[in-house]
Amino acid sequence: MTKQIPKASNIVNHASLVSAELRQRKLGQSGCVLWFTGYSGSGKSTLATALEKALIDDHHFAYVLDGDNVRHGLNRDLGFAAEDRTENIRRIGEVANLFADAGVITLTAFISPYRADRQLAREVIGSDRFREVYLTTPLEVCEERDPKGLYKKARAGEIGEFTGISAPYEPPLDPDVIIDTSANDLTTCVAQLIAQLRQDQVITA
Amino acid sequence: MTKQIPKASNIVNHASLVSAELRQRKLGQSGCVLWFTGYSGSGKSTLATALEKALIDDHHFAYVLDGDNVRHGLNRDLGFAAEDRTENIRRIGEVANLFADAGVITLTAFISPYRADRQLAREVIGSDRFREVYLTTPLEVCEERDPKGLYKKARAGEIGEFTGISAPYEPPLDPDVIIDTSANDLTTCVAQLIAQLRQDQVITA
Repeated sequence: MTKQIPKASNIVNHASLVSAELRQRKLGQSGCVLWFTGYSGSGKSTLATALEKALIDDHHFAYVLDGDNVRHGLNRDLGFAAEDRTENIRRIGEVANLFADAGVITLTAFISPYRADRQLAREVIGSDRFREVYLTTPLEVCEERDPKGLYKKARAGEIGEFTGISAPYEPPLDPDVIIDTSANDLTTCVAQLIAQLRQDQVITA
Repeated sequence: MTKQIPKASNIVNHASLVSAELRQRKLGQSGCVLWFTGYSGSGKSTLATALEKALIDDHHFAYVLDGDNVRHGLNRDLGFAAEDRTENIRRIGEVANLFADAGVITLTAFISPYRADRQLAREVIGSDRFREVYLTTPLEVCEERDPKGLYKKARAGEIGEFTGISAPYEPPLDPDVIIDTSANDLTTCVAQLIAQLRQDQVITA
């Protein structure tokens, strides 16, 4: 975290023979990160995987980073203590930054409840290609969905420090996109995000 | 490292709406990892960045992971003690696996001197899409090149445990590709790797 250490993205631009502009021109898209944040059950993974499918069907490189592929691999050494949670999000931010450098439309689906952690990710990735996607699906809807049965366990005290029940969620103050998956169907939500990607000129088609 | 924990790649296939086959068909390439290994100065980064440029010029998604973009970002918390070196390579293997999942032709350029570490990377990534590229450039040539002045410092005792000087290098026993950058020019080496990618049907054009 020392300020003196140069950011990875600066070094990449020096070392690589491939500029971001060349990459964009040859690959037909520019790398970015849509950072989904919201309660467990708010629809982050569902929406991210549906968007990934839509983008790949349209011949775009897109990839979802979520608990399934990160927690059991890269971050298998981390637990759920406060410092481990912060390290979890720090690494995800760094990996998402590498994916964005590579030109991939990167979709991260983690609760990421703390503003400071999300802010760090924004700084690592760069504001120009980082978009905070806030899923405002109400807590009571998320708890009713309870796709993994986690709210039930949290209410029963079997899981400690569960976001929304026994641990805080700090809502984004100035999110780039706001989506309520309880008020809109999946197709509408995906279309909203594709419109955002077009507006940002991440994709042009 | 526990065996009971399922591999990330298995879970991805479950959770994602995008099969590896669909990804390959829509994106015109399949994800893989070319894992470069060899002494400092053997030409790993030079060759990897030249191959990356050639692939992107040909509209393929390729990306180099090397010390410049990983050591100062994701792995900035790691030093050079034995366990930190192993953790460094473990994380790189996991990140390369995510990139390969995403369909990217992933080029990793790290000395990675230990067989056990490279074997772990192969297991995480899967033998079908992992290729060990062994740069056999002789140590005396690497030391003469000394692009970062590190050999000079190692000989002067200013750097401890330097591969080839004061720390061992364990050569691959059965590498997929062998390249000596002191015996062939860069264009020839790049062509050799592109031929390998075609043979593996990673790219078809």
